[in-house]
Amino acid sequence: MAMQKPVLALVGATGAVGSTMIEIMDSRESVPWGEIRLIASARSAGKVLRVRGEDITVLELAPEVFDGVDIAMFDVPDEVSAEWAPIAAARGAVAVDNSGAFRMDPDVPLVVPEVNADKVTDRPKGIIANPNCTTLSMMAAMGALHREFGLESLVVSSYQAASGAGQPGIDQLQAEISALAGKNVGNVSGDVAEVLKAAGVPVGGDSPFPAPLALNVVPWAGSLKDDGWSSEELKVRNESRKILGIPELKVSATCVRVPVVTTHALAIHATFSRDVSVDAARKLLGDQPTIVVKDDPANGEWPTPADAVGGDPTVVGRIRQSLDFPNTLELFVCGDNLRKGAALNTYEVAETVAAAG
Amino acid sequence: MAMQKPVLALVGATGAVGSTMIEIMDSRESVPWGEIRLIASARSAGKVLRVRGEDITVLELAPEVFDGVDIAMFDVPDEVSAEWAPIAAARGAVAVDNSGAFRMDPDVPLVVPEVNADKVTDRPKGIIANPNCTTLSMMAAMGALHREFGLESLVVSSYQAASGAGQPGIDQLQAEISALAGKNVGNVSGDVAEVLKAAGVPVGGDSPFPAPLALNVVPWAGSLKDDGWSSEELKVRNESRKILGIPELKVSATCVRVPVVTTHALAIHATFSRDVSVDAARKLLGDQPTIVVKDDPANGEWPTPADAVGGDPTVVGRIRQSLDFPNTLELFVCGDNLRKGAALNTYEVAETVAAAG
Repeated sequence: MAMQKPVLALVGATGAVGSTMIEIMDSRESVPWGEIRLIASARSAGKVLRVRGEDITVLELAPEVFDGVDIAMFDVPDEVSAEWAPIAAARGAVAVDNSGAFRMDPDVPLVVPEVNADKVTDRPKGIIANPNCTTLSMMAAMGALHREFGLESLVVSSYQAASGAGQPGIDQLQAEISALAGKNVGNVSGDVAEVLKAAGVPVGGDSPFPAPLALNVVPWAGSLKDDGWSSEELKVRNESRKILGIPELKVSATCVRVPVVTTHALAIHATFSRDVSVDAARKLLGDQPTIVVKDDPANGEWPTPADAVGGDPTVVGRIRQSLDFPNTLELFVCGDNLRKGAALNTYEVAETVAAAG
Repeated sequence: MAMQKPVLALVGATGAVGSTMIEIMDSRESVPWGEIRLIASARSAGKVLRVRGEDITVLELAPEVFDGVDIAMFDVPDEVSAEWAPIAAARGAVAVDNSGAFRMDPDVPLVVPEVNADKVTDRPKGIIANPNCTTLSMMAAMGALHREFGLESLVVSSYQAASGAGQPGIDQLQAEISALAGKNVGNVSGDVAEVLKAAGVPVGGDSPFPAPLALNVVPWAGSLKDDGWSSEELKVRNESRKILGIPELKVSATCVRVPVVTTHALAIHATFSRDVSVDAARKLLGDQPTIVVKDDPANGEWPTPADAVGGDPTVVGRIRQSLDFPNTLELFVCGDNLRKGAALNTYEVAETVAAAG
């Protein structure tokens, strides 16, 4: 990389994650970048967005916009990344991709800087992948615990936010809650679908969610894979193994959407090869710069999505030692799925690449 | 018990569970009871409630109202049951108690008819206990699977409804959702507490829930016990062991309240001593009279709380065989916490006692 400040490109600058990315850059005391280029589809090209006090005109995605770019962050759908990240790489940029297109490619590192920052320089394709937001919510915590205690297995149940389905997910939950306004919730709880239909709110096939989400939870996220598993559940398993560098890690995940706007929560049952203690785990997690421990039930302190939303840290609490399973901790973890779960981690990977030179 | 039809008493007839109990009796084709007595506190005594087409005046709780009663169902707070169930028993009634007062008493059977109906006649104190609603949601399914495969351990994460905290819980969620009407949910998701306070809706100490529940999930239910466990989590462990008759069953539970009015959902990771298969489990569960299997993700079929509310059956789906843990099934279970989770099971125990004569 050049001695001058690296040129950063943000592809997908006008989307939900792209907007969060700009917020993150605005909030940093300093950034290591020279030029910042904003890139989007033809539809959004020409818009002017303000980044760190400077007006920047959005460029249309094309091969030549990557000329001179050192690091290109991609916050776009899988198929767009699959096509364009290699083009950016061929033009000399390191592509840091937030889509699912390259995560399990053996020639693409899957990076959470707190866990495996060293992998950013091992990028045969010039591409680095950012994990799925559900996996990411727990990686900082599990990475720290693994280094200390030796992780062997994970049983995970998720409480996933509507914004995991992007802006359409937020809009859908908004529409559902508006349709319920003024209703007696005790009377409609079995009939939310009917209330939504009567209000003209899409349900099922026409909605980002396969069932009503307001006053409900939906045990489905992603697409159907073999043997009844959802794609989201397999991502949690396969990406955790790759990021933590434990190919044999046992993982069972059940992914459930809940009527929360932003922040994924996870209930985690984690078994280790060495003795664990709650005190040691709490101290270890509290010492991590990107984790906040909120764990004092006697004083009403535990993580909820509302505590994590809009913030960078993962909030960890409800740390208990299993009464019956040896070397096992139970935890409840909340992470803003648009920040650490997407934009923030991508940005931190880009920073790590810049620092690695 | 007398040859004539048994006399049934319902203590707590005017509460949330009591009302559901009356609905259940109304919906039955026939009931085995002679007289039905409704009993409540002085405040509600004198009210007239209609049960199976007959107006019945609510009596004030007093020792003599149990004279001549064969079976007395208690749907009242723990301390009321602790005092009055023994009085009813001393007057000759079999007390079927839905509170937590007697569940772990070694001289009180804890009964789910699908699992351990035979225990109803082994009642040294004349008292039979009904399990906690969270435990109950999974007992019919786990009992059937245990008989077939030999249950060894359970890891459970709950998605518990507001009505688990009774009518005040329903009213609180109603007030929270009303306060959010017209707000941009994307903007307020981290500030629900402020929105509620501004609308005069109680938050925290003055609410049945220790944190805002709308657009949030709260990983806390019950009171604080040793080592950071909640009372609800320990109930799931201890009651499951007692009902299933597996004193050494390994159980870890994380209990989380979600913004759903009625129906508790559970994500269950269950390990058995014998080989399992999804097909065998699905057939076995589908053969249970009180279970509905809804498990066809290709066609958008899985259990949600909205599917179970107001119904008697437990809805079971998302049945998967663990990819990494031997002899292990993953399931998602939904049960109406006011029906099977409380009133229905209590009533079925009373029916079982009546049938046992």
